[in-house]
Amino acid sequence: MSKVFVNIGLSLDGYMAPEGMDIEHWENPDYKNWGAKWGTLMGWILKQQYFRENLQFGSGGETGTVNDMLRHTMERSGAGIMGKRMFDAGERSWPEEAPFHTPVYVLTHEQREPWVRPGGTTFFFVNDGPERALELARKAAGDRDIRISGGANVIQQYLNIDAIDELEIALAPILFGSGRRLFENLHEAMPQFQIDKVLNTPDATHLSYVRAS
Amino acid sequence: MSKVFVNIGLSLDGYMAPEGMDIEHWENPDYKNWGAKWGTLMGWILKQQYFRENLQFGSGGETGTVNDMLRHTMERSGAGIMGKRMFDAGERSWPEEAPFHTPVYVLTHEQREPWVRPGGTTFFFVNDGPERALELARKAAGDRDIRISGGANVIQQYLNIDAIDELEIALAPILFGSGRRLFENLHEAMPQFQIDKVLNTPDATHLSYVRAS
Repeated sequence: MSKVFVNIGLSLDGYMAPEGMDIEHWENPDYKNWGAKWGTLMGWILKQQYFRENLQFGSGGETGTVNDMLRHTMERSGAGIMGKRMFDAGERSWPEEAPFHTPVYVLTHEQREPWVRPGGTTFFFVNDGPERALELARKAAGDRDIRISGGANVIQQYLNIDAIDELEIALAPILFGSGRRLFENLHEAMPQFQIDKVLNTPDATHLSYVRAS
Repeated sequence: MSKVFVNIGLSLDGYMAPEGMDIEHWENPDYKNWGAKWGTLMGWILKQQYFRENLQFGSGGETGTVNDMLRHTMERSGAGIMGKRMFDAGERSWPEEAPFHTPVYVLTHEQREPWVRPGGTTFFFVNDGPERALELARKAAGDRDIRISGGANVIQQYLNIDAIDELEIALAPILFGSGRRLFENLHEAMPQFQIDKVLNTPDATHLSYVRAS
């Protein structure tokens, strides 16, 4: 059966995004230094060959264990789910060939026709909540897995309905001080995880957890 | 020169202590399930031979890399610093031979004579703030290192004066949902760290960071 997984970057102090990284300040990466903070958080991924190719950042880049991990994450994904804020940011920055190559379900109150991109990504706009989006994603994914991309509040919603099988966190040593926390707003009856594996690199510690049995 | 270090357990969602773990609820570990949460957070340490012996929990226990790490942490420590809440909890639960075996400086507004324990631990009550406590601890530690024991708000104070050289975090996979966060109330000009080493075990991931050069 398909697994539902999260694969994100996290600052040492638990933020998925620094303060200031929002539509309002998108054009001003100096605002609260959010651009530099984000660059440090994601430094490890920005230099991987697979990531650079997928985002059309240019050729070259590192190959190796981390790059293979990125390819595996993409290849296992049969569908994605994300929030509207993440989509809005992505809509401005993804290349025309959006980097998902699967159906992606966007949680939103906005009604909008599916947005078909070259290369296999289609964004569907879901107005009926996280359970409905997951149902649609499961159907679309077939035997492959479902990636909950973010942002933090979307991951929290899926943790709170105990729908997350695997948590993959690239913990970077940077402290943000403020921003959007991953772990907050969790219900008292929250799911529990156990350590699956850990891969350390100089830039980030890749922590994998699976739901506790 | 002596290093100033932190060595603590942290929940996956960033808490040093679960909600309810305070003097008021100390006698009732069922309150918000804090006793079980704490037990899971610290499960890895509770079964180590060195820790059990030091806390007089009884003989036996695991020996190996983690146990050696605990011994190393104790042997490198020439002085400690802790907050009043941590001291108050410890005063009720440490054995007569308190488990530090060094001078320990307690940040407090309370005026109190030094409390000398058998086995080398003496608690000094410092009313003049964290810088003064650190000055006293440095003198006492000699060539050995200074451990900032906690709680969270004490570590935050030392992060904010950029006095922490090394952060050692045993990240346990448990989610608490609420409690006392380690990383909050940090100033904008906070220190930055880099990964030193990582040791993974089934119970916790031992993350070591040093101040970024």
